[in-house]
Amino acid sequence: MKEMGVPGRPVRIGIIGLGGRGRGQLSTLLGMEDVVVPVVCDNYPDRVEEGRKLVADKRGGVMPDGTTDYREVAARDDIEAVVVMTSWTSHIKIAVECLNQGKWVAMEVGGAASLDECWSLVRASEKNGKHCMIIENCCYGQEEMAILNMVKNGVFGEIVHCQGGYQHDLREEIGNGDVSRHYRQDNFLHRNGELYPTHEIGPIAKEINLNRGNRMLTLCSMASKAVGLEAWLKEHRKDSPLAERRVNAGDIVTTMIKCANGETILLTHDCTLPRPYSRGHRIQGTKGIWMEDTRTVYIEGRSPVKPGEWTHSWESDKGIMEEFEHPLWKAYRQFGLRGGHGGMDYLVLRAFVESLQQNVAPPIDVYDTASWMAITCLSEQSVAMGGAPVPVPDFTNGEWIWRGAENIGDYSLDVIPG
Amino acid sequence: MKEMGVPGRPVRIGIIGLGGRGRGQLSTLLGMEDVVVPVVCDNYPDRVEEGRKLVADKRGGVMPDGTTDYREVAARDDIEAVVVMTSWTSHIKIAVECLNQGKWVAMEVGGAASLDECWSLVRASEKNGKHCMIIENCCYGQEEMAILNMVKNGVFGEIVHCQGGYQHDLREEIGNGDVSRHYRQDNFLHRNGELYPTHEIGPIAKEINLNRGNRMLTLCSMASKAVGLEAWLKEHRKDSPLAERRVNAGDIVTTMIKCANGETILLTHDCTLPRPYSRGHRIQGTKGIWMEDTRTVYIEGRSPVKPGEWTHSWESDKGIMEEFEHPLWKAYRQFGLRGGHGGMDYLVLRAFVESLQQNVAPPIDVYDTASWMAITCLSEQSVAMGGAPVPVPDFTNGEWIWRGAENIGDYSLDVIPG
Repeated sequence: MKEMGVPGRPVRIGIIGLGGRGRGQLSTLLGMEDVVVPVVCDNYPDRVEEGRKLVADKRGGVMPDGTTDYREVAARDDIEAVVVMTSWTSHIKIAVECLNQGKWVAMEVGGAASLDECWSLVRASEKNGKHCMIIENCCYGQEEMAILNMVKNGVFGEIVHCQGGYQHDLREEIGNGDVSRHYRQDNFLHRNGELYPTHEIGPIAKEINLNRGNRMLTLCSMASKAVGLEAWLKEHRKDSPLAERRVNAGDIVTTMIKCANGETILLTHDCTLPRPYSRGHRIQGTKGIWMEDTRTVYIEGRSPVKPGEWTHSWESDKGIMEEFEHPLWKAYRQFGLRGGHGGMDYLVLRAFVESLQQNVAPPIDVYDTASWMAITCLSEQSVAMGGAPVPVPDFTNGEWIWRGAENIGDYSLDVIPG
Repeated sequence: MKEMGVPGRPVRIGIIGLGGRGRGQLSTLLGMEDVVVPVVCDNYPDRVEEGRKLVADKRGGVMPDGTTDYREVAARDDIEAVVVMTSWTSHIKIAVECLNQGKWVAMEVGGAASLDECWSLVRASEKNGKHCMIIENCCYGQEEMAILNMVKNGVFGEIVHCQGGYQHDLREEIGNGDVSRHYRQDNFLHRNGELYPTHEIGPIAKEINLNRGNRMLTLCSMASKAVGLEAWLKEHRKDSPLAERRVNAGDIVTTMIKCANGETILLTHDCTLPRPYSRGHRIQGTKGIWMEDTRTVYIEGRSPVKPGEWTHSWESDKGIMEEFEHPLWKAYRQFGLRGGHGGMDYLVLRAFVESLQQNVAPPIDVYDTASWMAITCLSEQSVAMGGAPVPVPDFTNGEWIWRGAENIGDYSLDVIPG
């Protein structure tokens, strides 16, 4: 790993999608002096202007180009990559167009609407020899990377089961969708499934080497009734047509996944009931267990044993989290945290930029992107069939068996010392 | 609710099954002066003698009868009820014989091996007009009853999702099965499914009125690989044939259940990996959430709100647990806790005894018993079919729609003041 923050060769990147998330990520990218942004793009002209000003403010007043047509961005020959941060149902289409125009693509998170669009992403990446990386920031969380470090060091023994959840009370945000122009509302009103799987499956994929010696085989999803958002809209949107709207998305959607090497994964989507935020991460192996909600751990042979007790006791994870802090995060703290979401936004964007600079596959590649996003449409199918198992495609077409450590960029998730 | 601990009419009860659990429960029963035990029974003659002495010690030296043949107990005309505490794969058969001989039956927990044996229990109870109650002690836990009290008082709003788990590191107990004569070992070696569902489904069933206006419709189960117990046996049973045994039971078995009124239930069976004990209880409704693992709660309009915070905050459940302590538990604490497992063993046995004395249906009846136990064989089927949904039989044959509050014994789970 090279010294953090040292600029590499300048890379020219177009930005598509300038909603709240897009503008935040653009600011983070503009904090990197080796990143040049010649063009920004959004459906809405007011956002294009906002984006142009954002760039000019950080880059000595020089205004970049702006457009409302993403195809113009894709077609430019003065950029080598695009960061796509548009809606869940448009970003794959845009990413495919950019790949076909010979650009690398970083794409914000969200689930896929169909397997076909996931395949289209893989085909476009393979055909054009350009990489596509879902910028799943949670893979770069301090906590997630410490857990990954423990996994790689065998702390939990053989991994057997992982859990995660997107558990975030979004009723108010969803209910404001008509004002904020956020597409989330339409997705919750119409779809029923695991709408937002990547924050959980991303870190878990790294823990159990999905698409690198392991893969997801099948998935079963079940949805509860949808009453939380309806009740909220009735109470808080009295004067809106939303007050009487039927919501399709079950409040709690549970998904079980079976992997080739025998592990099970449990995902929970929980966004329309009142609750504190939690990604509900949990990992279990033959030697121990860690849980995010309790911030506790039990590791056989390491955690204290009280003689005569009828069961084991939890201990705080504070000590072990410090001991196994990921080297990337140690360096990052010295360098100084920046960007949104506790610093992880910067790291995931930096991983993309440095992979591009060095022309190596990014640590999260198109096969990861496609398979993580596919969980959404697969879960919709399974929910619709009462929880019936549906097969998860092997987007690597068999290569997962041999894909391994060569697939590592700088700031890689797999760089563990010793 | 009558005053706690006041003896009712004397009831004469036979005891079948005198392993560790059987002897413990027998002691608890002998602490009730209105319970007479004329006969004890077990497969093993040494245990019969132990049981007889236990009775004699508590009852002025008068020895009860003893036998190794349960049919002798079932056929006696000087008892009106039997408590069956034999192995998971024998207790239903014995219970059916006792029902057919006109006895009420209380039966210890465990899962069923087939739907047929669940139906046989229902048929025998209906045909003979005698009740059968699974003595699921966790329905009477202090924590579980406080949560039930909150549910009945609408604290969580409309209930949407419930979770529970039997999460108990039993590797050493299972590994000692050949010494302890415990049947658990054989079940883990041969079966793969949710082997022990009733500690979780019992309290959850009360929360969402299963078989009383609601019911379980379908179930999907998925099992992880089985490596935890094998690794343990290899390390700790080096000189035993067990060291090389293949284990069939996946370390983590996850089960999703859909209910008629739209709720989802999530169960976790987790007994062969190192971990502290937890029943992982969680309940969510349109107004709030509670979690056992964190002992925290968030209730909309009640939990403190920090202005400007991006998400809600947990609060300790201490205050709300005290406020909503179940009236039965208030009375019980004044009366004085007794019996095993923090006092809940006494309460569940007392519910059986008092229902019998008053000749009213027990708060947990044969339909609850059959449907809760059925989860085990249904989950084995679903696991075998890769998580495919399997229908949960309606053991009430449609009566669940109308069955309601009339089905309440004394010490009932449904006695909530106001």
